[in-house]
Amino acid sequence: QAAPPDTGAMLDVRPVGYVIGLLLVALGASMGVPMAVDLLDQNGHWSAFFEAGMLTMLSGLCLALACANAVRTRLSLQQTFLLTTGVWLAMPIFAALPFVFGATGSSYTDAFFEAMSGLTTTGSTVLSGLDDLPRGLLLWRGLLQWFGGIGVIVVAMVFLPELRVGGMQIFRSEGFDTMGKVLPRAAQISSQISTIYIGITIACALAYNAAGMGAFDAVVHAMTTVSTGGFANYDASFGAFQGPHEYIATVFMLGAALPFVLYVQLLNGAGQPLVRDSQVRAFLAVAAVLVGVTAGTLVVFGGMPVERAFREGLFNIASILTGTGYASVDYMQWGAFIITLFFFCGLIGGCAGSTSCSVKIFRYQILFAAMKAQIRRIHSPNGIFQARYDGRKVAEDVLSSVMAFFVLFVVTLGVFAVLLAMTGLDFLTAVSGAATAVANIGPGLGPIIGPAGNFAPLNDPAKWLLAAAMLIGRLELVVVYVLFTARFWRV
Amino acid sequence: QAAPPDTGAMLDVRPVGYVIGLLLVALGASMGVPMAVDLLDQNGHWSAFFEAGMLTMLSGLCLALACANAVRTRLSLQQTFLLTTGVWLAMPIFAALPFVFGATGSSYTDAFFEAMSGLTTTGSTVLSGLDDLPRGLLLWRGLLQWFGGIGVIVVAMVFLPELRVGGMQIFRSEGFDTMGKVLPRAAQISSQISTIYIGITIACALAYNAAGMGAFDAVVHAMTTVSTGGFANYDASFGAFQGPHEYIATVFMLGAALPFVLYVQLLNGAGQPLVRDSQVRAFLAVAAVLVGVTAGTLVVFGGMPVERAFREGLFNIASILTGTGYASVDYMQWGAFIITLFFFCGLIGGCAGSTSCSVKIFRYQILFAAMKAQIRRIHSPNGIFQARYDGRKVAEDVLSSVMAFFVLFVVTLGVFAVLLAMTGLDFLTAVSGAATAVANIGPGLGPIIGPAGNFAPLNDPAKWLLAAAMLIGRLELVVVYVLFTARFWRV
Ligand SMILES: [K+]
Ligand SMILES: [K+]
Repeated sequence: QAAPPDTGAMLDVRPVGYVIGLLLVALGASMGVPMAVDLLDQNGHWSAFFEAGMLTMLSGLCLALACANAVRTRLSLQQTFLLTTGVWLAMPIFAALPFVFGATGSSYTDAFFEAMSGLTTTGSTVLSGLDDLPRGLLLWRGLLQWFGGIGVIVVAMVFLPELRVGGMQIFRSEGFDTMGKVLPRAAQISSQISTIYIGITIACALAYNAAGMGAFDAVVHAMTTVSTGGFANYDASFGAFQGPHEYIATVFMLGAALPFVLYVQLLNGAGQPLVRDSQVRAFLAVAAVLVGVTAGTLVVFGGMPVERAFREGLFNIASILTGTGYASVDYMQWGAFIITLFFFCGLIGGCAGSTSCSVKIFRYQILFAAMKAQIRRIHSPNGIFQARYDGRKVAEDVLSSVMAFFVLFVVTLGVFAVLLAMTGLDFLTAVSGAATAVANIGPGLGPIIGPAGNFAPLNDPAKWLLAAAMLIGRLELVVVYVLFTARFWRV
Repeated sequence: QAAPPDTGAMLDVRPVGYVIGLLLVALGASMGVPMAVDLLDQNGHWSAFFEAGMLTMLSGLCLALACANAVRTRLSLQQTFLLTTGVWLAMPIFAALPFVFGATGSSYTDAFFEAMSGLTTTGSTVLSGLDDLPRGLLLWRGLLQWFGGIGVIVVAMVFLPELRVGGMQIFRSEGFDTMGKVLPRAAQISSQISTIYIGITIACALAYNAAGMGAFDAVVHAMTTVSTGGFANYDASFGAFQGPHEYIATVFMLGAALPFVLYVQLLNGAGQPLVRDSQVRAFLAVAAVLVGVTAGTLVVFGGMPVERAFREGLFNIASILTGTGYASVDYMQWGAFIITLFFFCGLIGGCAGSTSCSVKIFRYQILFAAMKAQIRRIHSPNGIFQARYDGRKVAEDVLSSVMAFFVLFVVTLGVFAVLLAMTGLDFLTAVSGAATAVANIGPGLGPIIGPAGNFAPLNDPAKWLLAAAMLIGRLELVVVYVLFTARFWRV
């Protein structure tokens, strides 16, 4: 592709604005769904969605029209970066409106936090009294996470490999020229993946329903399970559904943390990639070990009955590891070992190309392969050793992107923790809050934002910081940071 | 150099044993110094050093004699690795004895912890009632850190660049063939550096004395300042010496965290390298910003008088940043922001080739340069951009060593935190304990191991874990980890 010559001109943001405008129209239109629910319930809350929907659609329409004279199917690399961050910034601005206009009557800060937490599939909440909210708002929270989940899969499958961010270029489709053609490719992938995503969600909802969960709860929780989002319809989070529901949720949480491209292959009749994928195997192995350790600790040191220890260990480890963030019990009561284990667990994450978040399994695999190569090089300084992933050599730029991701992840976590402490939070709340936001998990640690707590008591600056951390974490850091470089804005 | 052919034989450990034996003899002999002090004091405690010294010298002699038929001046790479870890493991085993035999009457666990904490210049202590200890034992603690400090400089200047560990190969002396000749080179460097090290220590002791500190305290604190060790002669740590002493300590702590090779050049009449070194400039800039933020917070939010806020901010930031770990006040009382800031501060560290520890400034410089190159590459996927350090291109193997170091550092910290929590420590104690040990700082956070606390109440497994973490951190992780690979032990 021929790059345009450097004219010293500013980046043309209109093609980006056009796409964001259209997506806002779609977001506004989707508010019709919870509106319909509130209309059916005759609870008098439908107007909040009507107002928010109108405002969103009109704003989106204006933006799209203003940019309509510069529509492109080929986006430049800069425009692709800008689009990715722009979408995740514009959506919550409007998705927040129903929380302001509706029964929650939230401040805009709280509403934006809730919307960002939803769309980034983080699942931290500032709302309490969930059990008594109108069903429209509960459905809206579920929908936000569900949209966020499919959005993230598309970003991970199309945008990130194209942008060569965080080592995701390792998942570029070979022999497929996507350069500049992210929009058509995104549309194509979305339609393939959507079928699977909707199918899994329906299966999850049916399973929940069969186990005894009411139809509405089953649908909303299926949406927040499959997106590894973690919003629940009850203040007790998933504690309202102990027993068989926990096993069902575990299956779907783990399933949602696998690379969705493998499901596409499975649908096309190729089941082997799913079974043989090294990332999937490593992920399931890590999960098995962690569940064993947790359940063992609960039985041996906590004196818990074996089935309950296994079930609660399984559910809560799957919830943290996939970054879903449901809690079926207050695991702050399980002692310091499990709390510390869960904290570092959250920094592992699921597989790339799924709805899960955090550092992700494939990056650890690449990092450990690189270290193995390093140690070999130490033994034989004149030998040439290259890290291998899934049997293939890891290209140098993949390796350095992965390492840059890891360093940025840790430094980002540290900086946000210090900034959060600056707003007045205590050490545990600040550090675990930064981690849970950057890794898009949901609950933090401690009495305030822990699994039995809520983000409502935090001050406003802390809420904005956490919302920013969620966005940065969800878009794999570099996608956001690159916008802050002066070089970026030059054509 | 011609590598010997692979014979399937085991590594010859005798040349390593020989050197360790000789160093043990020297360690045992050095116990004569505190013995002399206790003899002069006529406090009846000299016999502990006599017994420990005899035992150490005899053990060292036996080891040296047993290995004497395989003395080499050229060590293989494996032998060099083994020597580095072996020295830091063998020394504390014997250096612990005076704490067992002497007035403290410590358990061997406590004694080993104290000795390892000393020789790794960590400075965490299990001893209380320091104010009433015989002076011999106080001097022994100071000596351990002082030996550890010079040892670490030699390792950083000779061994690590040779071993190509953690990116330290960037500091290889050009045009100087050290391959295999680490022992002669170490002897040569040691004698050059020792002069400077002793000179700085004397200057520090004189300055402390001039400011009013007693002669004995001045000598011991000079030894633990220049080694960025942080052992103090009083339970109140450096709190016994508020005022001018804090300024003096700051100057020498910061000075001890600069690359010692620059002092060699300064002695040879070249002062420019010290002033122009990019690592030194970055380190001082980071320190200045952190002091400003801390002092500002104390004045604005704590209502502290300006001089006191500046002095205490300066001293305690310098203490954490250089990894010295003195505390002049209980900064746990300074609020969550400063606590969180100090925690992450400790993960920065001083300059390479100094007595300080943790990740170190040059690694962050290289990591950020690599990220800058990454972002440039994102803009122009076909361009070739390389990270630069100090004006020169960073070789790929340096970059990947630095990144591997960082990843290992974070993962090690996480694993030790989880293991410490498993022994029953609370989250804050486990996480800050792991960090303070791996980064060789000294105090942790919280009521138990915080600046006003002590490591004595911890359980024995936790103490052994922390001692292991100190060793691993002090030897830049890879040096220790490489011994756990099966490949290492093959010739
Ligand atoms: K989540
Ligand atoms: K120290």
